[in-house]
Amino acid sequence: MKLCQKHGLPIVPRGSGTNLAAGTTPSQGGVVLIFRNMNDIVELDEENLALTVQPGVLTEEIHQYVEEQGLFYPPDPSSGKISTIGGNISENSGGLRGLKYGVTKDYILALEVVLPNGDIVRTGGKLAKDVAGYDLKSLLVGSEGTLGIVTEATLKLIPKPFYKETMLAVYESLEDAAETVSAILANRIIPATLEFMDQGTIQVVEGYKQIGLPTDCEAILLIEQDGPKEIVEQDIEKMYSICKEYGALSLSKAVTEQEAEELTRARKDALSCLAYLSPTTILEDATVPRSKIAPMVREIKKVADKYDVRIHTFGHAGDGNLHPTCATDARDKEEMARVEEAFAEIFQIAVDMGGTITGEHGVGEMKAPYLEWKVGELGIEIMKAIKQAIDPNNIMNPGKVFAKSTKKRVVVSNV
Amino acid sequence: MKLCQKHGLPIVPRGSGTNLAAGTTPSQGGVVLIFRNMNDIVELDEENLALTVQPGVLTEEIHQYVEEQGLFYPPDPSSGKISTIGGNISENSGGLRGLKYGVTKDYILALEVVLPNGDIVRTGGKLAKDVAGYDLKSLLVGSEGTLGIVTEATLKLIPKPFYKETMLAVYESLEDAAETVSAILANRIIPATLEFMDQGTIQVVEGYKQIGLPTDCEAILLIEQDGPKEIVEQDIEKMYSICKEYGALSLSKAVTEQEAEELTRARKDALSCLAYLSPTTILEDATVPRSKIAPMVREIKKVADKYDVRIHTFGHAGDGNLHPTCATDARDKEEMARVEEAFAEIFQIAVDMGGTITGEHGVGEMKAPYLEWKVGELGIEIMKAIKQAIDPNNIMNPGKVFAKSTKKRVVVSNV
Repeated sequence: MKLCQKHGLPIVPRGSGTNLAAGTTPSQGGVVLIFRNMNDIVELDEENLALTVQPGVLTEEIHQYVEEQGLFYPPDPSSGKISTIGGNISENSGGLRGLKYGVTKDYILALEVVLPNGDIVRTGGKLAKDVAGYDLKSLLVGSEGTLGIVTEATLKLIPKPFYKETMLAVYESLEDAAETVSAILANRIIPATLEFMDQGTIQVVEGYKQIGLPTDCEAILLIEQDGPKEIVEQDIEKMYSICKEYGALSLSKAVTEQEAEELTRARKDALSCLAYLSPTTILEDATVPRSKIAPMVREIKKVADKYDVRIHTFGHAGDGNLHPTCATDARDKEEMARVEEAFAEIFQIAVDMGGTITGEHGVGEMKAPYLEWKVGELGIEIMKAIKQAIDPNNIMNPGKVFAKSTKKRVVVSNV
Repeated sequence: MKLCQKHGLPIVPRGSGTNLAAGTTPSQGGVVLIFRNMNDIVELDEENLALTVQPGVLTEEIHQYVEEQGLFYPPDPSSGKISTIGGNISENSGGLRGLKYGVTKDYILALEVVLPNGDIVRTGGKLAKDVAGYDLKSLLVGSEGTLGIVTEATLKLIPKPFYKETMLAVYESLEDAAETVSAILANRIIPATLEFMDQGTIQVVEGYKQIGLPTDCEAILLIEQDGPKEIVEQDIEKMYSICKEYGALSLSKAVTEQEAEELTRARKDALSCLAYLSPTTILEDATVPRSKIAPMVREIKKVADKYDVRIHTFGHAGDGNLHPTCATDARDKEEMARVEEAFAEIFQIAVDMGGTITGEHGVGEMKAPYLEWKVGELGIEIMKAIKQAIDPNNIMNPGKVFAKSTKKRVVVSNV
């Protein structure tokens, strides 16, 4: 770090590179820092429910390790099989359990970070409460490698839920599915998972996986609850009734663990399946307040039609985090221009609905030109001032988060 | 704000002034901004489980308002009866439910903030996931009025737990009480409340409240669990056995809601009761990893003896957040010097144990000279750079968080 600082050389810290916003591409040259060999589980502190790890440990390895001890690390990005915890921290990764359990930031107790000048700073501790000065830890989590390099992290663990049930609800109409989501939450149930796939996604996933998903419906919801057995059973029963009441065509509960795993896996593999469709796949994560899911999915469809591009949508219905995904071909410049316009319009619609341009994937290089739409000119100014204060020579992952120029706002009517 | 900026006049935002670190004292003159009349509940959004409020709303009013709707806002600082939500946000207030539910920061979805130059910035949204740029919201929460003024906040709500049980465990020895805390958590139970009072505190509280607390024991634990009835009953039963196993002299469950309320109130009123003891009360909140509670309480006792000052300790055993409280007299300069030395030593011991100088009260003016002990020279440097970037003329609550000079570290042996 000191050498790079001395020579003004960019540094791009990179985990497994599974981020979806061109967040770890060395587009301005420099050194790409890989953490593959910095992958020790340093300490499990059972008394304080804290796990200390190096940044190169895989997310799934953490899940397995702590679950063997009856403990639980909730954040579960779909890429968890190969993503690293360092990458998760840099991106503040979310996942399927975000609605009930929160995201990576909610589980970081302490960080060791190397600053751009080579200084090493430790922030946080094995503490549930700590208000000593500004919250540097929260500033660093999700800063996408633009402020420093995480070299060690202490994660908060919770007791592992005893029991889990998984069910699938099939809908003729999108609105019915969306209304079910609202009704579940209005009934004061917070499920562990409340996932959504639209028809296009279902067809593609079923095409590749053949696990019996219904391909003629407009939407399906994947619902999971975890916790004490009696409560899970009660909640699932209630949600079963709610799904029925709101027009579910069919409902099925996973009977075996394998069945449940298959259903969850189908949702987690949605992106990889969609990626088979075409040479290029562009996945976004425009996010809206969850009350806006149905109108948002409708708008995405309209936009896809308007620009004549192929977009399928899946995502986390419970927390409004949608993943409109475009099957396209980067070699077709004319189509790519339409794709870009379509996504710009989708971002604008999300922001107009009180949402954001990115729920869990980060800004990276791809969404940098749109950041101002969400945080405003003033927001960018403050963020840049912070960046300048910590990394005055801009050697940390330059070109990410902040763009040279902001895209013009799209004028969208009828939202 | 623009006027103050123009004339270089300090602004001190102040809720009810219940903070315990001299965080809202206009010690450098200027304008004290009171939010008493900015106290509207702006909107309850049931679909997105979000409550939007102005900063002058009392914490208790929020609790009552949302609980009537079957919803829950968990942060419950002991001062909640009179504290404002704006103050809670500035201080990132904790409370008795921190262990299970987290602190104020965990429940802030969006903020409207007036910056030192008069610009208005909105950060966050009714979103469970949002990674668009740096996390300004988390930076502002707990910044003690040194970066801007919160003029509106959107709070995250959760479903109200259906049922609650309260019990009290009495211990001959401090170690037994501390071991009980560890055993409860090791048994994968996270109680809603796990509070601790030492003998001195018990005697004083019982003296004033006369609710039948045993005054001859070394420690009591106040334990609460909330949630679905069957789970609460299971957990309370398990914790009952654990308390017995670890040597509780007596155990009592609150039978009526009034009994439960009395017990909780006794703990919440510990500070007010201790305040009757002497003309001056100094309450601290040195915090340690929860595995260190017993040694920490022992060390506090030793320090009190060493400096011949009267310190009683109570606090949140579940999250290691202790409140050693000194009954003294500000007019007695010689005693005050000893008190200050005693607390300095307590801070140092907490930090040496992996803890912090403040768990939930903030740094304010009182703890500013000790901040470096926790965050290091480098930590202070980064925080100052951020402050400088956002408030270059230092008009926001000057003299708080950052001290003119750092106290010399105390050399403590045998920790």
